[in-house]
Amino acid sequence: MSLLVVGSVALDTVQTPFGEVKEGLGGSATYFATAASFFTDVQLVAVIGEDFPEEHLTFLNQRGIDLAGLERNMGKTFRWKGEYGYQLNEAKTLQTDLNVFESFRPKLPVSYTKASYLFLGNIDPSLQLDVLRQVTTPKLVACDTMNFWIGGNRDGLVKTLAGVDILMINEGEARALSSEFNLVKAAKTILSLGPKTLIVKRGEYGALMFNGNKIFAVPAYPLESVFDPTGAGDSFAGGFMGVIAQNAGGEISDQTLRQAAIYGSVMASFCVEAFSLDRMRSLTQDDIKCRYIEFKDLTGYEYTA
Amino acid sequence: MSLLVVGSVALDTVQTPFGEVKEGLGGSATYFATAASFFTDVQLVAVIGEDFPEEHLTFLNQRGIDLAGLERNMGKTFRWKGEYGYQLNEAKTLQTDLNVFESFRPKLPVSYTKASYLFLGNIDPSLQLDVLRQVTTPKLVACDTMNFWIGGNRDGLVKTLAGVDILMINEGEARALSSEFNLVKAAKTILSLGPKTLIVKRGEYGALMFNGNKIFAVPAYPLESVFDPTGAGDSFAGGFMGVIAQNAGGEISDQTLRQAAIYGSVMASFCVEAFSLDRMRSLTQDDIKCRYIEFKDLTGYEYTA
Repeated sequence: MSLLVVGSVALDTVQTPFGEVKEGLGGSATYFATAASFFTDVQLVAVIGEDFPEEHLTFLNQRGIDLAGLERNMGKTFRWKGEYGYQLNEAKTLQTDLNVFESFRPKLPVSYTKASYLFLGNIDPSLQLDVLRQVTTPKLVACDTMNFWIGGNRDGLVKTLAGVDILMINEGEARALSSEFNLVKAAKTILSLGPKTLIVKRGEYGALMFNGNKIFAVPAYPLESVFDPTGAGDSFAGGFMGVIAQNAGGEISDQTLRQAAIYGSVMASFCVEAFSLDRMRSLTQDDIKCRYIEFKDLTGYEYTA
Repeated sequence: MSLLVVGSVALDTVQTPFGEVKEGLGGSATYFATAASFFTDVQLVAVIGEDFPEEHLTFLNQRGIDLAGLERNMGKTFRWKGEYGYQLNEAKTLQTDLNVFESFRPKLPVSYTKASYLFLGNIDPSLQLDVLRQVTTPKLVACDTMNFWIGGNRDGLVKTLAGVDILMINEGEARALSSEFNLVKAAKTILSLGPKTLIVKRGEYGALMFNGNKIFAVPAYPLESVFDPTGAGDSFAGGFMGVIAQNAGGEISDQTLRQAAIYGSVMASFCVEAFSLDRMRSLTQDDIKCRYIEFKDLTGYEYTA
């Protein structure tokens, strides 16, 4: 069934100790949609400017992503510039030019309003809520946010979270949102705001999924070469939601969420192997299947009580 | 079969955001031996001063730990003073008084020289090697070290590592020892120095075990209240080696090491629930079994290819 994502499409300039990319394809919705497209049909809601390169549209089209909701407005495309040190977990933002993204008011094509699965990428919570209201019968809604909104539009965020099933944020954001340092306590507070599931992303350390009173530890795949962590979180979300949409129809059990989280970590691991979305250009279903099997080996042990 | 540990017995003064303990029982050998004592017979080699409280000896005796190798020398017991912030992963050392530990030259009682399992706690690598040479037929040797020795006695450490099966160190130490930032690359370099297995401890993020060309991700148990992380690494090592010694006789397979690593993480999770070794005083076999079962739930998922 169809999976709808709203978020940013951007041109990223990124420097890491291993190289750099100038105005490469980026943005939360781009990473999410591309990762999800390996599992299910994806509808994308975002905005680009007049200067957005045709080659990037061609790539998204080739991935089978529905671009009916991708507005093209007068002005320049959203640009982000950042750098990472050897400690690749956190980017240092050097420059943000919102451009056409600044006045983005997502409007869903009629064909999108019946989407069953919805991912609200990291945009103003009030806009997230607006999108949520336009989707008539969502089966599962997941959401991302950041400290900028936790501090700057907390009321809007709390309203949005009341309608969200799964929140995916990083450790610092979980602490800021809950005012709790301990992650178990933070999760309890956040789950009281509406979401039934909280996924706390921890970069190279993987993620913790709090689902009701159950906790699942998702490892990150230990890679010998990490080139660029940009988009890892959105690729995780894309793999996660893509798998859930792919297996639509059945009950979304704790086991379903666990498998989805492993696929999320699989897709994040590919994302960071190259700059921009470059690894996704050559990625095959066999690659995904192989790494999923490797995750079994990474986490499995014979259980003897 | 018997498990021998050499390391420190100390009196620790520790402050965390959740309280403090003054001159509590501590030391690498103490944490290791106590954790291991829940699984197997333990022989302890360490030194204490004249001022070492009898109650601590009573506790170690009650845990069934063989203290024939615990020297009591003229002078004061090793003291360490440290504090932790909310980010509990790393201690800030405020004061170290080596006292009798400074001139410690471990000598094994004859009854110890036939130990099958050996843990070389964090002491001068040259002394570790000296102990290793006194043990006639070790079946498995594990070892810890720290940046102080990696920088200060690298030659000695490299000699010791040539005779070690399993090295257990933290992320920073793995990077310093290998001169590689990436942990997969670091592991390859370190495994070329002798150990067949490297366990990289990552505090609240768990551990990665590199065994030959296999990697196992060990989660840390997400606790709602962490009081004092002191001794977590040694408790991990104690649980790990204790389980291996308990199951002695069989082949030490990759699966054996994985189960041992989970028990290591179980014991570390109890250690940090209270100051000093206080949680170990009330810990039962049922507590351990319950948490081992909880780890299965923390890491398990239905695998469908």
